[in-house]
Amino acid sequence: MIINMSAEATEEEINHVIERVKECDYQAHVSRGTERTIIGAVGSGGRRNEIEALRAAPGVEDIIPITQPFKLVSQQVKHGRTIVDVRGVKIGDSDLIVMAGPCSVESRDQLFETARAVKAAGADMLRGGAYKPRTSPYDFQGLGIEALEWLKEASEETGLPVVTEVMSEADVEIVAKYADMLQVGARNMQNFSLLRRVATVNLPILLKRGPSATVKEWLLAAEYLLAGGNPNVVLCERGIRTFETGTRNTLDLAGLALARELSHLPVIADPSHGTGVRSLIPAMSSAAVGAGADGLMIEVHPCPERALSDGPQSLDIPGFAQLMQSLRQRARTFAGGAV
Amino acid sequence: MIINMSAEATEEEINHVIERVKECDYQAHVSRGTERTIIGAVGSGGRRNEIEALRAAPGVEDIIPITQPFKLVSQQVKHGRTIVDVRGVKIGDSDLIVMAGPCSVESRDQLFETARAVKAAGADMLRGGAYKPRTSPYDFQGLGIEALEWLKEASEETGLPVVTEVMSEADVEIVAKYADMLQVGARNMQNFSLLRRVATVNLPILLKRGPSATVKEWLLAAEYLLAGGNPNVVLCERGIRTFETGTRNTLDLAGLALARELSHLPVIADPSHGTGVRSLIPAMSSAAVGAGADGLMIEVHPCPERALSDGPQSLDIPGFAQLMQSLRQRARTFAGGAV
Amino acid sequence: MIINMSAEATEEEINHVIERVKECDYQAHVSRGTERTIIGAVGSGGRRNEIEALRAAPGVEDIIPITQPFKLVSQQVKHGRTIVDVRGVKIGDSDLIVMAGPCSVESRDQLFETARAVKAAGADMLRGGAYKPRTSPYDFQGLGIEALEWLKEASEETGLPVVTEVMSEADVEIVAKYADMLQVGARNMQNFSLLRRVATVNLPILLKRGPSATVKEWLLAAEYLLAGGNPNVVLCERGIRTFETGTRNTLDLAGLALARELSHLPVIADPSHGTGVRSLIPAMSSAAVGAGADGLMIEVHPCPERALSDGPQSLDIPGFAQLMQSLRQRARTFAGGAV
Amino acid sequence: MIINMSAEATEEEINHVIERVKECDYQAHVSRGTERTIIGAVGSGGRRNEIEALRAAPGVEDIIPITQPFKLVSQQVKHGRTIVDVRGVKIGDSDLIVMAGPCSVESRDQLFETARAVKAAGADMLRGGAYKPRTSPYDFQGLGIEALEWLKEASEETGLPVVTEVMSEADVEIVAKYADMLQVGARNMQNFSLLRRVATVNLPILLKRGPSATVKEWLLAAEYLLAGGNPNVVLCERGIRTFETGTRNTLDLAGLALARELSHLPVIADPSHGTGVRSLIPAMSSAAVGAGADGLMIEVHPCPERALSDGPQSLDIPGFAQLMQSLRQRARTFAGGAV
Repeated sequence: MIINMSAEATEEEINHVIERVKECDYQAHVSRGTERTIIGAVGSGGRRNEIEALRAAPGVEDIIPITQPFKLVSQQVKHGRTIVDVRGVKIGDSDLIVMAGPCSVESRDQLFETARAVKAAGADMLRGGAYKPRTSPYDFQGLGIEALEWLKEASEETGLPVVTEVMSEADVEIVAKYADMLQVGARNMQNFSLLRRVATVNLPILLKRGPSATVKEWLLAAEYLLAGGNPNVVLCERGIRTFETGTRNTLDLAGLALARELSHLPVIADPSHGTGVRSLIPAMSSAAVGAGADGLMIEVHPCPERALSDGPQSLDIPGFAQLMQSLRQRARTFAGGAV
Repeated sequence: MIINMSAEATEEEINHVIERVKECDYQAHVSRGTERTIIGAVGSGGRRNEIEALRAAPGVEDIIPITQPFKLVSQQVKHGRTIVDVRGVKIGDSDLIVMAGPCSVESRDQLFETARAVKAAGADMLRGGAYKPRTSPYDFQGLGIEALEWLKEASEETGLPVVTEVMSEADVEIVAKYADMLQVGARNMQNFSLLRRVATVNLPILLKRGPSATVKEWLLAAEYLLAGGNPNVVLCERGIRTFETGTRNTLDLAGLALARELSHLPVIADPSHGTGVRSLIPAMSSAAVGAGADGLMIEVHPCPERALSDGPQSLDIPGFAQLMQSLRQRARTFAGGAV
Repeated sequence: MIINMSAEATEEEINHVIERVKECDYQAHVSRGTERTIIGAVGSGGRRNEIEALRAAPGVEDIIPITQPFKLVSQQVKHGRTIVDVRGVKIGDSDLIVMAGPCSVESRDQLFETARAVKAAGADMLRGGAYKPRTSPYDFQGLGIEALEWLKEASEETGLPVVTEVMSEADVEIVAKYADMLQVGARNMQNFSLLRRVATVNLPILLKRGPSATVKEWLLAAEYLLAGGNPNVVLCERGIRTFETGTRNTLDLAGLALARELSHLPVIADPSHGTGVRSLIPAMSSAAVGAGADGLMIEVHPCPERALSDGPQSLDIPGFAQLMQSLRQRARTFAGGAV
Repeated sequence: MIINMSAEATEEEINHVIERVKECDYQAHVSRGTERTIIGAVGSGGRRNEIEALRAAPGVEDIIPITQPFKLVSQQVKHGRTIVDVRGVKIGDSDLIVMAGPCSVESRDQLFETARAVKAAGADMLRGGAYKPRTSPYDFQGLGIEALEWLKEASEETGLPVVTEVMSEADVEIVAKYADMLQVGARNMQNFSLLRRVATVNLPILLKRGPSATVKEWLLAAEYLLAGGNPNVVLCERGIRTFETGTRNTLDLAGLALARELSHLPVIADPSHGTGVRSLIPAMSSAAVGAGADGLMIEVHPCPERALSDGPQSLDIPGFAQLMQSLRQRARTFAGGAV
C-alpha cells in the first residue's frame, strides 16, 4: 500500500507513520519528494487493515491500495477458468448455457407449460421464483414450498436442472432440498449472513450483482462464498442502477467482461432484469454473447400480461423460441472463431 | 392508474384492456384523443398488481401509477408526525437527538472511554457495532455477543440507550435482549426476510436507506415494518451511491427532506457514512439540521487511526465535543424560529 | 398530457386547471375517482409548454407527458431507417462501419502511419482530433488547423473519409473545409448554440451521447440538428457516467438498442471511450455488434504509451488488425441471419 | 505519481519505465516488493502528461496521481478565501448573498414585478435568463437582447447587480455589456471554448457545476478561468444527476463543502435547480447555509403556473419573502458562532 502524506505533514507525523508500518509487519519504503513524502508499505504478510486505518492518522492525506483485495476468486490465484457443473450442465465451458422460466412460479400449470416450452426451445436449465423479494409488502411474495415442489417435478419431467432464489438463511435448508443451484438475488448480494450460510451448502451458487455494487464488491461477495468453502460459484450481471429511466437498469456488459478478466469464475447475463423491456431482450442477449457471457438467464411466461411479477420484461413462448433460434445460429459461428 | 395505449393500438387491443380493467374491479375512464387512447383505471379497491401487469398486453405503451404505493408510512394516512420513544429519548419531537459512538465495538476499554465521552459531550444515545457487514470476508467482522454485553453495561453506566445493527434473522432475538433500538443497515434495507422478522420485535427500529434506494423504495421498506406490526420506525439517510469519488457517498439531504414530507416518520442523518470524510462532518451535521433532520448519528473513536473500521470518518473525542458545542448553539437559535 | 390533481385539490382548483387546458387549445377529459381527479389534456395542436407549467398551479400534484417530446428523429414520423452517406461510406445500411484513428493528431508521421495501418486493416473512415476538449487546461489541447490539413492529406492518400470534432461555433467553418463529417463531442451534446450552428452545415454530423444524458435527451439533441435543417445525423454511444470505477464509463448498449428502436437514425458505439480499458475493447466491440450497432469508433495509436491523450484506451496497430479480423468473421455470420 | 507495475512485469519492462520517468525529468524511486514493483515519479518540474501516458506501456498496471491536478484554484496555492466583488456585492465575505429572480425573462412586467419584490424581500442580486439552454428545440429559448435591456433597466431601478447566463462565445460581448456577472451554465461547464472566452472578460463569473461533474472536474473548469486571466470566479452547486427520481437533481452539499475546502473560491448553492421541487427549497436553502454556502440562487416568479420555464421549482413572491425572513433569523444566529 502507498501512504500519501500531506504536503504539510511534519517530520514527526512522517516518522509516526513509518513506525506504525513496521509494527504492522510491512517494510517502509520512503520517497521524499520536493513537495511531499510518500511511504510504501511493502510486503505480503502484514496487517493490511491496520495500515488502511492510518488514513485517519495526522499528516496522512490518502492511502492507496495496490493489490486487489480479493484472493480466491482472482485470476492471479487460479489461472484458467472454473467450470461449474449443475447436475450435468457445465457452465463456463465453451457452450452458451440458457436458464429460462417464469419470474415467479404462479401455478402448477403455468410452470409446467413454461418448462416444457423452454425445454423444447433448447434451454439448458429451468428458473422460477418460489420466494420473491418485492419492493412493496403488498405485492405477490411467491408461493414458497408448494412452488419448490412443482419446480422439482418439472425438473424431473423435463430433465432441466433448477435454479431458484433463496432469500433467507432460514429457508436455505428447504430450498436446497429441491433446487440444483441456489440463487442469491441482487438485493442480497451484500447480505453477508446469507452468503456465509449458502457457502456451506453442497450446491452451486448463482450470485447476482447488486444494483449498486462495483465489480470489485461483487467479486468480494463471491470471495465470501469461496472463503466459506463453496468453489462452485457463477456470477450473474443483471443491470446496475443509473440515471437512465428508459430502461429499468443499465446492463453493464463491460462489467461482465471485466469480472471475467479479473476472476476465473463463469459469468452470465440476465437481459430480462438488465433492461426491464421485452423488446430489447434479443439485442441484449446477443450483445451479452458478444461480450463473452458464459450463459443467459431469461424470463419466459405463457401470458406476460397476466404475470404476477415482471410481465413487461418476460418473453412469451414464441418469443423465446425465436430468440433461441437466433442464438443457435450465432453460437454456430462462434465455434468458427470469435472476437 | 393510467394506461397509455400506443398510437398503433387496434380497437380490439383497446377493448381487451378495458375489459381487463373492469375484471380487476376498477372503472375504466376512456379518453380517445386524435393520436392515441388513454384509459384510466379508477377506484381504490381494485387489484392494482393485475393492472400493472397489463404493461405486457399488446397495444399498451405504458402504465402510469397515480397514487403512491406506500400507505401506512404516508402523510396521507396519518397527519401529524410520529414520535419514537427509545427508552425515554424521544425522536421526532422538537429536540435534535444525537446518537454517537464507535463504528465497531473493539474492546471494553474503547467502548467505555467513548461512551463516557459522548455522554459528557451531550449525546442522547450510544451507537456501536457488534455485528459488522464488511465488503471483504477478510475484514474485522465484529465481536458479537461480547460486544453486546459491553454495550448493555455502558448503557447502564451512562444512561444512554443503545442502538446497534442486527444483520441476520438468526441474531434478532439475541440482539433484542441487549439493545434499546435495532438498526437495519443500508445493505439490508431490502432484506425483506430480516424486515419481516424485526417487525415482530417490541423495539424501535432504525432503518437506514440503501445506497441505491430511491426515497420511494426506502418508504416501502419502512412499510414492511409498519405492515408487520411495528410502528416505531426511524429513518436514517446515510448517503447514496453516485459517480462522485471525492466523498464516500453523497449525503442526500433533499431525500431526507422529501422523506419527511411524504411520511410521518422521524428522519435522521448519518454524516459519517454519508461523507466518509472526517473534515466534512461538522458542515454536513449543520446542513442536516438545516434540512430538518430529527437527529444525527455520528461515529466517534478515541483513536481513529487505530479503528478496526471506518477510522477516516470517525471524529476523535475532542472533535465530537466541539461539534456538540456548535450544534447546541445552533439548536438554541432554532428554538427562536427556523426556516 | 395527464394532469394528476392532488387528493386535497378543491373544486375551484380543479376548475381552474380545466379552464387553462381549454385556453391552451386542448380538450379536457376529466376522470373523477373516489380519491382524486385526473384531467387529460387531449389534442395535438395545443400549447404543450403551457400545460407543463401547470405543474406549478395550486392543487396539481403532477403532470405526466404521454407522447415523446421528439418528433423528427422519431420512428413514429419516419418509418424505415436513415442511411447517412459520408463521401460514399453508407452508415445505417447492412454493413458494419468502422471509424478508426488516433485520439489526437500529434504529428504528421503519427497520423499517416495510423491512417495507412487502419486502411490496411479494413477501416472505413479515419478519425483524429485536431481540437481536443480536455478536463485540465494544462493538458494537450490539439494542434488545430495543422492537424486538419494533415487529416485532409491522409484522407486523400488512403481514400478514407475523415470525421473530426468541432468544439466551438467559431471553428465550424474551418473544420467543415477539411472534414467529411463533423463530430459533436459528449461534453457538447447540450451545447445548443453549437448544435444550431452545425445544423446549418452541409455535412453529416456524428452526435456523441453526453455522459449523463438520458436516451431521450440525446434524441432531443439530435432533434435540434434535424429541426435546424440537417437530416444526416449519426448517433454515437460512448458510455455514461455511473458509480463503477473499474471502467472509465459504462457503455450503455441497451441505450444504443433503445435509441435505434425509438429513432430511425443510425447508431454506432465507441468502446474506446466507453470502457477506457484497452483489454475490454474487443469484447465490447463484439457486444456492440450484437446489440445492433451500425458501426464502431475505435482509437488506434502506433505507440499508445507515448500518446498525448487516451493512450490507455488506444489499441496499437497489431491489436487493431486483430480486432478487424475477428469482426469480419463475425460480420460474415451476420449475413447468414442475426438475432 | 506512482507507477504500479503488474505482478507479471518483466525486468525489461520495469527498466523501460524507469528510463522513461527519467527522460520526463522526474526522479525514479523504485520499491521492489515480494509481489510487485512500484515506481515513484518524484519531482515537480517534470512532464506529467507523459508519465500518465505510461499507463499504456507494457507491464504497467496503473498510474496513481498523488497531487491534485488543479493549481490556481487550490487552497495550497492561495491560503485564505477569495472575495468576489460584483458591483459592490461581496461574495465570499461573512454575509450570505442571495441572488433571486425569474428562471427566464418573459416580459418587461414579469421582470420588473419580480425584481422589485426580491429587492423588497432583501435579495442582494437579480438573476434572470435572456438566453436559455433547453433540452427540446421546441421549448421557449429566451428573449435575447430585449431581455438583457430590461435586466439592465431593472438593475438600475433596484440597485441590484445582475447575473445572467451566456451560452455561446458569440454572445459573450453583448451579454457582458448588460450584465454585472456572467453565468456559465451547468451544461456548459466543460464547454472549454466558452470558458476560455469568458476568462478574458473583465467581469466576475458564476460557474455552475455540471450535472455529472466530479468536484475535481468542476475545480479544473474553474482553473480554465483563472489560468485564462480571470480570478473573479464564484462556484455554484446546482445538483448532480443520480438515480433518484423524487427530486430533479441531487443537491450535493457535501460537494459544496468539499469544493470550499479544496479551493479558496466562494461557493453558492442553487436549491431551485438542485431539487426541482418548490416545497423543498426552504429546507435546502437552510441546509446549504448549514453546509457553509456563501450564497444562494433562488428562482422567483410572480405566477409560477404561467412560467415559460421551471415553474414547478419557482417560489412565488410571498414564498420568497417568507424564505428571506427565515434566512435572516438564521443569519443572525450565525453571527453568534456557527458550526
